[in-house]
Amino acid sequence: MPPRPSQRITIKDLARELGMSVATVARAFHPEADIAVATREAVLRLARERGYQPDALARSMITGRTGIVGVLVADLHNPFYPQALALLTAALQAAGFNTMLVVAEPGGTVDAAIRLLLSYRPEYAVVLATDLTTEATATCSAAGVPLLFFNRVPDAPDARGVVCDNQGGAAALAAHMIAGGMRRPGFIGGLEGTSTHRERRDGFIGHCTAGGLTVREEPGGAFTYAGGQDAARRLLRGPDRPDGLFCAGDIMALGALDTARHEFGLRVPEDLAIAGFDDIPMAAWPAHDLSTVRQPLEAMVEKTLAWVRGRPAAGAEAGCILRLPGQLMERGTTRPVPSLPFKEICR
Amino acid sequence: MPPRPSQRITIKDLARELGMSVATVARAFHPEADIAVATREAVLRLARERGYQPDALARSMITGRTGIVGVLVADLHNPFYPQALALLTAALQAAGFNTMLVVAEPGGTVDAAIRLLLSYRPEYAVVLATDLTTEATATCSAAGVPLLFFNRVPDAPDARGVVCDNQGGAAALAAHMIAGGMRRPGFIGGLEGTSTHRERRDGFIGHCTAGGLTVREEPGGAFTYAGGQDAARRLLRGPDRPDGLFCAGDIMALGALDTARHEFGLRVPEDLAIAGFDDIPMAAWPAHDLSTVRQPLEAMVEKTLAWVRGRPAAGAEAGCILRLPGQLMERGTTRPVPSLPFKEICR
Repeated sequence: MPPRPSQRITIKDLARELGMSVATVARAFHPEADIAVATREAVLRLARERGYQPDALARSMITGRTGIVGVLVADLHNPFYPQALALLTAALQAAGFNTMLVVAEPGGTVDAAIRLLLSYRPEYAVVLATDLTTEATATCSAAGVPLLFFNRVPDAPDARGVVCDNQGGAAALAAHMIAGGMRRPGFIGGLEGTSTHRERRDGFIGHCTAGGLTVREEPGGAFTYAGGQDAARRLLRGPDRPDGLFCAGDIMALGALDTARHEFGLRVPEDLAIAGFDDIPMAAWPAHDLSTVRQPLEAMVEKTLAWVRGRPAAGAEAGCILRLPGQLMERGTTRPVPSLPFKEICR
Repeated sequence: MPPRPSQRITIKDLARELGMSVATVARAFHPEADIAVATREAVLRLARERGYQPDALARSMITGRTGIVGVLVADLHNPFYPQALALLTAALQAAGFNTMLVVAEPGGTVDAAIRLLLSYRPEYAVVLATDLTTEATATCSAAGVPLLFFNRVPDAPDARGVVCDNQGGAAALAAHMIAGGMRRPGFIGGLEGTSTHRERRDGFIGHCTAGGLTVREEPGGAFTYAGGQDAARRLLRGPDRPDGLFCAGDIMALGALDTARHEFGLRVPEDLAIAGFDDIPMAAWPAHDLSTVRQPLEAMVEKTLAWVRGRPAAGAEAGCILRLPGQLMERGTTRPVPSLPFKEICR
């Protein structure tokens, strides 16, 4: 059953009853429009009385503003993103925007989905967890829709980005694990093309290398639980097993942790220390008790919202990347360290 | 920076260049509109050449159909819902619909959010995981927007619902646990007003009671991990501890499991069998290995999509509740049973 707009009270009905033009009545619903106070009040009073539902579509035809924010998310299976999406959507709603959600499944049809999204003329597009193709970025740009990348440093030179200080956080974890006695570090990476993978890798490997340690690397963790399991199997088989393992995301670290314990019979952290990145809710569960770096989700959402509302914080010009500090969460999967000057790196 | 519609190629530009009326050009973009084949082809050819982006808002003004499906979700922290949302959004996208997401945080402003949603004239609203207030339901109904409840039996008499056979699944779990030796069953409930809580409770307690067992009950699990922990603490303290525990959702069962093991030092399943409902991804992780009932998510999404496309399956008339069978997943947190005629209940 399609909606029946004919049964709705329309702006024309209001205009007729008020003896005003439709354009005047429409302006009354747009806070920034130039209209006499008494006229606006008369329109709003009648609208309330008649139960008139301001029509966002009709209004957007007049004002050119749809109030729609497109949110593109690639990976709702990684618990970090539902968390981010819930916070972001609630914040947008509270600010009077509506979220149009596009899910870009791996290997999926994100370009087609973006064209569909753009046909609704979103005022902004926030990209969670994925890199757009060059074509998709160009399509948004041609449509005049500004892009903000959340948890990704964009390739596009005129896009904005809000990220955790991934490199600093990963370096802090490396320092913490070295102080706990790690001598044979291992690294499990996510998706090679992503900035989160690259920056966390650089932070961890850079800090270990500077300390004279050689890092064994397994790049194919794919930011999934199963990917973390598979990469851990490859790393833990054979001689010269790592005694410390940093995974570029918690969801992979939990896969690696379960594999180390349940398939290899290793004690964590005695035989093998393990740490992740993100601080997803499951990291704190007693069954896992995973050491990690907490991303500053609330602050990242706040910056995103400020930008969407057109009041970007200082330094948030187009092309700007905001890097917010994370927080080292020392839990049971890494060996405790008596004193921790290293935490400073991450603050 | 607001979008700059003036820089876009508009339907008026196309009409001018083709020497046609705007109405004719508009009809060409609507598959069901009455228009000569050659005329439609000429319009679409020029649109491609000029890079014209059909404008969903403008089109919806003409056709009365927006292609928008509102999706309301209450609880993205329970991993069942991101899973459902990802599948549902991808399916809607593939069918040419766009998802407008409304997040109803506990104690939040869902009524205001629904009014905002309705101002975009969605063709349908799918409600995940929450019960609308009577006012919100009436608002949707007055706006002519049909409602489908996903994983909830709606209170509203003319709303449709797609759910798992919660009662049958919970009864199958009870049978499985009794066959495994459970004699002192316990139940941890979710949110009292919800149909998932009520039906799972009825299935488990009904089956236990019919078998002559008395069930100790802790209703306040709130469908959260922390709620499951707290309820388990209350149940496991003191004498006459249950030897089997069914939680009305996996996320609570994982909280109860961690509490039983890490705070009470209980062996699972030897001292205490534990089972949940949903089969969220974490249930299968080796650290948990949780027995549960898998909800038929794919089939539920398929039914939802068929309904949204206007081709409801037989029996999906307004007011109809589709109950699809779940699947008993016997894992390591319940005691194994030699032979299982009980599984039939759940198929």
